[in-house]
Amino acid sequence: MGDPAGIGGELSLKAWLALRATDLTFVALDDPVRLERLARDLGLAVPVRVVATTAEAQQEFRSALPVLPVPLAAIPMPGRPDPANAKAVIASIEQATKLAVSGDAGAVVTNPINKAALYQAGFAYPGHTEYLADLTGATGQQIMMLASPMLRVVPVTVHASLRDSIAMLTTDMIVAAARTTAAALRHDFGIASPRLAVAGLNPHAGEQGALGTEETTLVQPAIDILRADGIDVSGPWPPDTMFTAAARARYDVAICMYHDQALIPLKTLDMDHGVNVTLGLPIVRTSPDHGTAFDIAGKGIADATSLLAALELAGALAERRVARPGG
Amino acid sequence: MGDPAGIGGELSLKAWLALRATDLTFVALDDPVRLERLARDLGLAVPVRVVATTAEAQQEFRSALPVLPVPLAAIPMPGRPDPANAKAVIASIEQATKLAVSGDAGAVVTNPINKAALYQAGFAYPGHTEYLADLTGATGQQIMMLASPMLRVVPVTVHASLRDSIAMLTTDMIVAAARTTAAALRHDFGIASPRLAVAGLNPHAGEQGALGTEETTLVQPAIDILRADGIDVSGPWPPDTMFTAAARARYDVAICMYHDQALIPLKTLDMDHGVNVTLGLPIVRTSPDHGTAFDIAGKGIADATSLLAALELAGALAERRVARPGG
Repeated sequence: MGDPAGIGGELSLKAWLALRATDLTFVALDDPVRLERLARDLGLAVPVRVVATTAEAQQEFRSALPVLPVPLAAIPMPGRPDPANAKAVIASIEQATKLAVSGDAGAVVTNPINKAALYQAGFAYPGHTEYLADLTGATGQQIMMLASPMLRVVPVTVHASLRDSIAMLTTDMIVAAARTTAAALRHDFGIASPRLAVAGLNPHAGEQGALGTEETTLVQPAIDILRADGIDVSGPWPPDTMFTAAARARYDVAICMYHDQALIPLKTLDMDHGVNVTLGLPIVRTSPDHGTAFDIAGKGIADATSLLAALELAGALAERRVARPGG
Repeated sequence: MGDPAGIGGELSLKAWLALRATDLTFVALDDPVRLERLARDLGLAVPVRVVATTAEAQQEFRSALPVLPVPLAAIPMPGRPDPANAKAVIASIEQATKLAVSGDAGAVVTNPINKAALYQAGFAYPGHTEYLADLTGATGQQIMMLASPMLRVVPVTVHASLRDSIAMLTTDMIVAAARTTAAALRHDFGIASPRLAVAGLNPHAGEQGALGTEETTLVQPAIDILRADGIDVSGPWPPDTMFTAAARARYDVAICMYHDQALIPLKTLDMDHGVNVTLGLPIVRTSPDHGTAFDIAGKGIADATSLLAALELAGALAERRVARPGG
């Protein structure tokens, strides 16, 4: 569902229109009444059907958008998140995750949430990912990967100021992120011997210490450890030249030191098709690479490209898991 | 000339081949003997002609690469910079600058230098730009702008570690860089009312303080000052979404807080056509957006695209200065 005051509902409706004639099916964990009203308000010809199981959802998918009902407490107002609906938002995440854990669903795809509204309702996790880790009993570290057709990136530090990102960066964090990434590319993405490119932190990757020392003190030691693991890893690369087409051809994923080092090239190359994939969970989980977009919610102009890409990638990853269970 | 052990000479030869039949002419401040030998070694059909003035160079340009001779002390070995030649490298910069100051040349275009080799020979400036500022008696601040057909960027902090870049950033630096940029876009680039987009420093431009405070303490105050100047300025923008095609259509230049925030999108979008323009000098000066490339020097595989773009932009800027002298 995501936040019902955001664009998530509209995206779900549009995704059904795009996928109804394909082999990829999904079920919405959402309020069927609000989805029907939204379809009518936006003039989208999407019949909504309440189902009881994912098997039933799969059967019905060609004729209607199947919904496992998660009733809202209040009628959602576009652009105005309502803490009264926070419980339903959380229930939607929880039920979807249970379906993935039990194997009734192949993957969880999460529409964007508004954290402030959830916090007000007592939600105690920093975000989706931590909640999913808890629900699935995940051990180890979860890693955010952003994937588009042109580039995959993993930011080692994510949601912190740039100053704090530098201060918190350690060799261990780089090693852990790279290990999780390499395992996921092998097991879920079907890349037998993934090639990791590790970015430097500083301009020109420090230029032999003249422009910073973290390449020598933090990044190179991580690369040495990963190489000893047998992982195909290169770097530290000068950040400004590692995202050109020629450079991208030489690796499968870029391990980046901070949020914007990863997100600037990803979004500059392809704003619409970026998908957020959580690595290190026992289930497959993807999400679109944008927020609730309250400013355009309810207007019918939201672009479902990223949610569609998230659904398609989730489907591909789930198929590979089914093909090799326990992977 | 640039460093004669780098790819500069090869680029000059290739640039002449590309421009000989056009209206844009240049003269090389270089050693004619080494250029002739280089052309022969690389199999490039470039006749080299020694000239005494830029007027003569312009007359001869269609039939030969004109050279104002700057003799080297030692035969240059590709990839091996020689401090014995540092004096000639410096003399080339000095003479080119004098020609631009006197009006005998419309602009200076500098091939890449190797700073270490110049420092060993007693060169006392951090780089090209500071030397040019001294030679031309420039007052005020010089600013590096990178320009490609898709994007113009100005990094407010440049050659420092990421940590130091954050520490040194001030409102005054942002204001000074933006003012110099706005004036240059008006006077040299012919943009009557340039639109400046100022980047935030932090992920999501700080997300109302949750991911950093510099947007509030440093960037917004700079924007307020610039707006009071009458400059068309927007921001602070989230760095990861401000370089998409849709976002770029809304501004003429991005004012960036650090080197890679500016250089990652520029080089990711267009590695080859980036040109370095020095703003805030009394003369027009551009340079290709790459280094000496010692690893491929002398092999005939260097790509002159960036030098050509630098020459073409220098020509366009110089023409505009001639059209409105004193601008």
